[in-house]
Amino acid sequence: MRSKKGKRRYAEAAESLGLGGKEWLSEKYSDKDFCGGRRKTMTTKEYIEYMKERPYLEAGSEVHMCMHRAAEEARRITSQINGTFHTAEELRALFSELIGKPVDENFGLFPPVYSDFGKNISVGKRVFINEGCCFQDQGGIEIGDDCLIGHQVVFATINHDAAPEKRGNMLSAPIRLGKRVWIGAHATILAGVTIGDNAIVAAGAVVTKDVPADTIVGGVPARVIKKIRK
Amino acid sequence: MRSKKGKRRYAEAAESLGLGGKEWLSEKYSDKDFCGGRRKTMTTKEYIEYMKERPYLEAGSEVHMCMHRAAEEARRITSQINGTFHTAEELRALFSELIGKPVDENFGLFPPVYSDFGKNISVGKRVFINEGCCFQDQGGIEIGDDCLIGHQVVFATINHDAAPEKRGNMLSAPIRLGKRVWIGAHATILAGVTIGDNAIVAAGAVVTKDVPADTIVGGVPARVIKKIRK
Amino acid sequence: MRSKKGKRRYAEAAESLGLGGKEWLSEKYSDKDFCGGRRKTMTTKEYIEYMKERPYLEAGSEVHMCMHRAAEEARRITSQINGTFHTAEELRALFSELIGKPVDENFGLFPPVYSDFGKNISVGKRVFINEGCCFQDQGGIEIGDDCLIGHQVVFATINHDAAPEKRGNMLSAPIRLGKRVWIGAHATILAGVTIGDNAIVAAGAVVTKDVPADTIVGGVPARVIKKIRK
Repeated sequence: MRSKKGKRRYAEAAESLGLGGKEWLSEKYSDKDFCGGRRKTMTTKEYIEYMKERPYLEAGSEVHMCMHRAAEEARRITSQINGTFHTAEELRALFSELIGKPVDENFGLFPPVYSDFGKNISVGKRVFINEGCCFQDQGGIEIGDDCLIGHQVVFATINHDAAPEKRGNMLSAPIRLGKRVWIGAHATILAGVTIGDNAIVAAGAVVTKDVPADTIVGGVPARVIKKIRK
Repeated sequence: MRSKKGKRRYAEAAESLGLGGKEWLSEKYSDKDFCGGRRKTMTTKEYIEYMKERPYLEAGSEVHMCMHRAAEEARRITSQINGTFHTAEELRALFSELIGKPVDENFGLFPPVYSDFGKNISVGKRVFINEGCCFQDQGGIEIGDDCLIGHQVVFATINHDAAPEKRGNMLSAPIRLGKRVWIGAHATILAGVTIGDNAIVAAGAVVTKDVPADTIVGGVPARVIKKIRK
Repeated sequence: MRSKKGKRRYAEAAESLGLGGKEWLSEKYSDKDFCGGRRKTMTTKEYIEYMKERPYLEAGSEVHMCMHRAAEEARRITSQINGTFHTAEELRALFSELIGKPVDENFGLFPPVYSDFGKNISVGKRVFINEGCCFQDQGGIEIGDDCLIGHQVVFATINHDAAPEKRGNMLSAPIRLGKRVWIGAHATILAGVTIGDNAIVAAGAVVTKDVPADTIVGGVPARVIKKIRK
């Protein structure tokens, strides 16, 4: 929703969650442009562009229904990945299909893996993803070269409105990992977070804010524990 | 076990876990009434009634073996849900079978989902459950209208006795969520917890005590972070 | 890598992660002894012996590639365990195959279960493992009699080097649970940790240090909350 009202609602909702509302971007798209509106044939590429604008997404809207249909498509592929045994090579092919672009020959995945969209994930070279990770990637998840993702890590790019009467409505924001980031088991990375090069996220950490490069963060919520000697 | 000794043992065990023992209920049923005892044909409905009494369950007892058999039945259905791709409509039908009552047409589930019993889960209208949630529902899990459950949330209604020589024995207590509750990814909701209307449980929180309505809780263990403006 | 340089690198890397480097063991084996080196036919038993020495494992080395191949073998079995419904008896047979030795008739498993190796897991009698646990067992995971493992617990025996330019390299160390240990849901047990008899690890805890017998630990990182009365 690109209207001033939409912008204000995103900002208010973000503030109520303690997220700050300053990152609200331009007003290029509207819910009405997508799926059930004028753009009945909006492409995946256009949807990804749309999500970059951090739209305020209403529960039950055409866009929301469209997200659910896209999630079904992602689940068709993850069901194939997770439902039976595959070799490392087959997993590279299937994960490439999930994200809509090829991964390099050093990409490693231990299934299962879960994704609600798939096409808004990008991975660098030599990335490894361990068992049970969830990629809620509607808002965009970028993973840099040489990142190592531990067991059962959740990347969540969608928040809900804290206001009870608008609870089903959604705010999305991208997650970005630099190079050589190591995410420990059971960590949760929340919407809007950027993690700097070489950083380590300790097991079980809940990352709510940006992580500076060359630091180790841990805890719930995550705080800087130490700097990494270089 | 409804005897005075049973009641005292539940209370002692609950206290040793810091749970308080005051919620011990009436003395309607006994282990001996169930499965291997007089009530060889005890129905699921009777079992659910039995669990409302917060019985002290002995490891290896007939009731315990019966719980394992019931878990197998639940796993037959969750294996079907999780093993292959299903449409949203099929998932509603399968989840209805799991819990033994129909969900509404706006119920949403992203599999996988896990349950140890199934028949002691109830969900309100327009509930959404994200990937990887565990419903240990022998003790009862009630989810109100419009609740949103994040990735890999665990609802655990069974505790073990802290006393080493009785460690395998179990204490169960129900979990209740009001309306419009949003549970963040990786949260753990423990036995006996009631979460008030409109509350938000932050990602990674471990909820050991009741959560007041209209609050945001977070951390390990979870504490109130802020009140929600209305 | 058994050279003095290898020993120094393990110690430095361990120290940079706050692990201490004192447990570095003898210098019996070398990367070159295994898989791609002299010992092209190294047995699983020899590999397990090798891992006891806490070798410093280089990313992309022959040993690392060998670990990936062994992980594929483990996944063949876990795919079978997790892909479809099995009775309790079938699960005991399949888990025995995974770990390469028989479990007792009172062993209980609620799938899914994940493992990167399998053959370096040992379980005592009457152990129960709940849904969604990850056993990263290259470094060795020993579980004593009567242990109870909750939902989605991660046992991680491999750390990475904190130095950015060596991030892909690995340090492994064993995890040991005594008797009657109860691990709560969503807990993470890290490399090198020993948990004493009768201890309880609270839900969501991240265990980075040894846990004394007869204590309850919780939090991120885990600390002693109370002693268990005996």
